[in-house]
Amino acid sequence: MDSTTFDVYDTTLRDGAQQEGMNLSVADKLTIAPLLDELGVGYIEGGWPGAIPKDTEFFRRAAKELELEHAVLAAFGSTRKAGARAWEDAQVRALLDSEASVVTLVAKHDVRHVERALRTTAEENLAMIADTVAFLVAEGRRVVVDAEHFFDGYRYDADYALRAVEAGFAAGAECVVLCDTNGGMLPSRVHEVVSAVRARTDGRLGIHAHNDSGCAVANSIAAVEAGAVHVQGTVNGYGERTGNADLLTVVANLELKEGRELLRGTGLRDMTRIAHAISEVTNIAPFARQPYVGASAFAHKAGLHASAIKVDPDLYQHVDPVAVGNDMRMLVSEMAGRASIELKGRELGFDLAGRTELLSRVTNRVKDAEAEGYTYDAADASFELLLREELEGERPAFFRTESWRVFVETVPGDPTEASSEATVKVHVGGERVIATGEGNGPVNALDHALRKALAPCYPEIERFELIDFKVRIMDTQHGTDATTRVLVETMDTGAEATWSTVGVGPNIVEASWEAIVDSIVFGLHRAGVTRRG
Amino acid sequence: MDSTTFDVYDTTLRDGAQQEGMNLSVADKLTIAPLLDELGVGYIEGGWPGAIPKDTEFFRRAAKELELEHAVLAAFGSTRKAGARAWEDAQVRALLDSEASVVTLVAKHDVRHVERALRTTAEENLAMIADTVAFLVAEGRRVVVDAEHFFDGYRYDADYALRAVEAGFAAGAECVVLCDTNGGMLPSRVHEVVSAVRARTDGRLGIHAHNDSGCAVANSIAAVEAGAVHVQGTVNGYGERTGNADLLTVVANLELKEGRELLRGTGLRDMTRIAHAISEVTNIAPFARQPYVGASAFAHKAGLHASAIKVDPDLYQHVDPVAVGNDMRMLVSEMAGRASIELKGRELGFDLAGRTELLSRVTNRVKDAEAEGYTYDAADASFELLLREELEGERPAFFRTESWRVFVETVPGDPTEASSEATVKVHVGGERVIATGEGNGPVNALDHALRKALAPCYPEIERFELIDFKVRIMDTQHGTDATTRVLVETMDTGAEATWSTVGVGPNIVEASWEAIVDSIVFGLHRAGVTRRG
Repeated sequence: MDSTTFDVYDTTLRDGAQQEGMNLSVADKLTIAPLLDELGVGYIEGGWPGAIPKDTEFFRRAAKELELEHAVLAAFGSTRKAGARAWEDAQVRALLDSEASVVTLVAKHDVRHVERALRTTAEENLAMIADTVAFLVAEGRRVVVDAEHFFDGYRYDADYALRAVEAGFAAGAECVVLCDTNGGMLPSRVHEVVSAVRARTDGRLGIHAHNDSGCAVANSIAAVEAGAVHVQGTVNGYGERTGNADLLTVVANLELKEGRELLRGTGLRDMTRIAHAISEVTNIAPFARQPYVGASAFAHKAGLHASAIKVDPDLYQHVDPVAVGNDMRMLVSEMAGRASIELKGRELGFDLAGRTELLSRVTNRVKDAEAEGYTYDAADASFELLLREELEGERPAFFRTESWRVFVETVPGDPTEASSEATVKVHVGGERVIATGEGNGPVNALDHALRKALAPCYPEIERFELIDFKVRIMDTQHGTDATTRVLVETMDTGAEATWSTVGVGPNIVEASWEAIVDSIVFGLHRAGVTRRG
Repeated sequence: MDSTTFDVYDTTLRDGAQQEGMNLSVADKLTIAPLLDELGVGYIEGGWPGAIPKDTEFFRRAAKELELEHAVLAAFGSTRKAGARAWEDAQVRALLDSEASVVTLVAKHDVRHVERALRTTAEENLAMIADTVAFLVAEGRRVVVDAEHFFDGYRYDADYALRAVEAGFAAGAECVVLCDTNGGMLPSRVHEVVSAVRARTDGRLGIHAHNDSGCAVANSIAAVEAGAVHVQGTVNGYGERTGNADLLTVVANLELKEGRELLRGTGLRDMTRIAHAISEVTNIAPFARQPYVGASAFAHKAGLHASAIKVDPDLYQHVDPVAVGNDMRMLVSEMAGRASIELKGRELGFDLAGRTELLSRVTNRVKDAEAEGYTYDAADASFELLLREELEGERPAFFRTESWRVFVETVPGDPTEASSEATVKVHVGGERVIATGEGNGPVNALDHALRKALAPCYPEIERFELIDFKVRIMDTQHGTDATTRVLVETMDTGAEATWSTVGVGPNIVEASWEAIVDSIVFGLHRAGVTRRG
C-alpha cells in the first residue's frame, strides 16, 4: 500500500449512530451508505456485526445490494476476549463472516482501562491485540486498529500506550488510529503526542476525535499536520455526547485550505446536498451554523459589510460557497442599509442598482416593520412580497379576506381538553365563500378553513404543506399583553420548494393569520398562478 | 493596568445578535446582561450606540437600570470617517454619549478592505485609527481596538497590518484584538501569526474568532497559547454565519484544562443554567451536542462499558460535569434521575432521602411528562405542584374549572385586526361563577376572565402579575399540528417573588390555560392562602 495515500474513514453508521436520539434501521444505513460513497470517502464503517443483530443484517444485505464506486466497507469489532483464542472467539469470527474486506478492531491502549474495565493484565491485553490482528490478517483481511483512550492513556503511561501501538503494527495492522475517546484534548497536545508517536514508529497513524472540548475538527487537523494519514469522523458531527469530528468540515478544511486531495470523485462540490440528505434519513434537524454546509454558513447580515460584499464577495467569505455546494445569502435586517436590500433584490432576481429612491423606500419600510417586531432574515417570502408591492404598486392578490373568527372551547365534561373551530369569509374567483374548519388549535383550524375556502378556485394549494410554525413572544415584560411574532415555513410538495413568511401582532391568532395568508399568496405566485375570477 | 490579568470579553449582545433569526429587543438585552455578569465575564459589549437606535436606547437604560457586579459595559463603534475629524464625527460622539467606560473600535487592518470597502488610502486609515483612539482616550475612555480582518490582512500585507496595530497602541489603546473576521483560519496559523505580532509589540493582544472553519474555539486557545490575554466570544457561539467562538467552551477549556483563572466569581459552576437561561431569551433552541453545557454533553448511551462507567466515571468523561453545572446522564439508568429529584426536593424543602419508592414514582412521572413535551428545568412551580401531589396525595386546589371558551374574530370592517373574548365557568368559594374577559389575544382574554372569576374570593391574586409568556412549538415536522409548550412566569408584586409554570398540549390555548391555572394555584399556596368555601 502506498504510504502517501490518505484515508478518509467515515464512521457515521457506527460511532455516529451512538448519538442520543438516533436510531438507524438497516434500511436507513443502506440509504446513507451510497450517499457517503458519493461524497467520496475511502471507507464506510458499517457497524459491529456479531455484537448488534441489526449490524449483522446490514453487512449481509450490503454484500448483496450495495454497489459502491469509491468506498470499501469496514466492519468494526473488538480484540478477542482475555484468556481465549482469537479463532475461537465468536465475536472475532463474526467479523470474518461479515465479509468486509477491512476490519477495524478497537483495542485498549490505556492501562487503567485494561485493569479496571477489562479486568485483565497489561501483558494479556497486548497479546489480545497481537493475536486478533494476526489472525484476521492471516485470514486475508486488512486490519485497522482503533487505539481506544490513546491520548489519556499516553498521559498516564506513555510507554504502555506505545507498546500497544507497536503490538498492532508488529502483527500486521495497516494503520493504528489514535483515539481521543473522551474528547477532551486540545490541538497543541494532540500535535505533541502524535509527533512523539511518529518518532517511535514508521507505521501509518490515524486520528479519531470527539468534540467534548469543542476541538474535534482542530484536533483532527493537528494530528494530520503532525503526520497522521488517516482521519475518522462522521457526517454532520453525529455521535455520542458532543459528537465525533465532523468529517465534512475536516475534509473541506484540508482540501480547500491545505491543498490536499482527499476525497475520491467530485463529492466536495455536492457536500451541502449530501449533508442535508443524510439529515433527512437520520431525522435530526440540520444545524444552521454548521461550517461549510449549514443554512447560515454563508449568510451575511451586517449592514456594515453589505456595500463592500456587493463589490467583492471574496473579501468577506473564507472560501467560495460553490466549492462545497452551498450559496451565499444576504439577510435583510435592521442593521441593513440600502446596499444589502439591493443585494437581496439581486438574489431574488430584481436589478435594483441605481434605483436610489426605491431602495430608500424599501429600506425604511423594513426598518419600520422590524421596529414593530417583524423580521425578514428568516422570512424571505414576506420580504419578496413587500418588495414586489413597492416595485409593482401592489402585492400579488388572489383573494380578499372579509373576516374570520375562531372559537376554542373545552370539550363538554372535560375542562382539560379543548377543541377549535374557525370560519373564514373570503372573496375568491368572483364569489363570496364562507368555509369552516376544525383543528387541534386555533391556528390549525384557521389554516384548514382558509384552504377549504380557496381550494375550489386554486387547487394548487393542496400541494402546499405547512412544515414549520414558530412563535416568539416579544417584549415579554408585558406577559400575555406582549407582541407576538409568528414564522411559518411552507413547502410546495410538487416542486420540493420551501418558503418562509412572518406575521406580527398583539394577538397570536392575528399574527398567525397574516403569516398563513402571506404563505399562500407567495406560494401561488411562485407557482406561476395568476388571479382567477 | 496589570498586564498579567486576562480579559474575558463577551460580545453576545453585539456580534452574537448578528446571528440569523436573532432579533434582541432592549428588554432582552437588559435581561441577558445580568446573566453574563453572573457568569463572571469582565466585559459586556452592549451594542453600537449611535448606529443602531435600539442600542443607543440600551446604553441609556443600562446606565440607569443595570447593576453589574463583575463586568463593565463596552460600547462598540468604528474609527472616524475618512477625511473628517474625530471630535466632529457623529458616530464617534455617540460612543462618548453612551457613557460606557470602555469603547471598542473596529478598525481596518487589511489594506485591501481599506482601499476597496472604505475607499480611502492606506495612510488615511492609519490616521483614522490614531485620531479616534487618541480622542477617546483624551476623553477618559479605555479603548480596545478590534483589528478587523487581521489574519487575512496579515497574509496579504503583513507590514501594513502590523503598522495598523502599532498605530492603535501608540495612540493609547489598551488592547488590540486580532480578528479572524471571515473565520477561515486554522489553529497552527493563528499561533504562528499571534507569535509574530508578539515579537513586534509589547502591547496586550486579544483574539476574536469566527467558526467558519469549525475551529473558533481552537483558534482562540491557540492565540492564548501564543500570548493573547484577551479573548472575545459569545454565549452558545451565537453569531453571523457559523457563529463566533463559543465563550463558554473557550473559558471552560482554559480554566479546567490549562488551570487559568479567568471568570470573576463562581459562574463556571452555573454555566449550564446560564447558557440555557440565555437561550430562553434569544428563543433559539439549545444545541444538545454543545460542549460542556449541552443536554447530551455528558450523556452516555447504553454500551459495552456501562458498569465500568458507574464504578469509575472519571475514566469516561473529560471533566467532572459538576464543574460546569451539568450532569452525567446514563441513558440506561434511573439512578441519576432519582438522585437529581432528591436534590431538587431538598432545594424545595422536602427531605426525600431514602424514600426510594416515592422517588421512583416521581422520577417516572417526570420522565413520562418530559416525553409528552413538558420541561421542569424552567418551571419549578409546576414541578413543586407535581411533587406535592405525590407527597400529599393531591395538589393544592382553590377552585374547580367547569369549562372555558375563547372567541377571536376580526374587527367588523377590518380583516387585519382582531379582538378576543373569553368566558370561564368555575366553582369557587362554594359558588358557581361565570365571568367574561376581553384581551388583545386569546390567552390574555382567558387570563382576564379567570382573574375576574376568582378575585372576589381570592383578592390576593390581584397582586399576581404575569410577567413572561413563552411559546415553543415542538416536533415542528407537523406544522400547526405540532405540540405546543407554554412557559409562564408570574410575580407576586406584594412579595417580590416570581415563579414559573408550564403547560403542554396540541392546542396553544389549552397549554396556556394549564400554565395559567398552575401559576395561580402555586401563587396562592405560596402566599399561605388556604382554600375558602
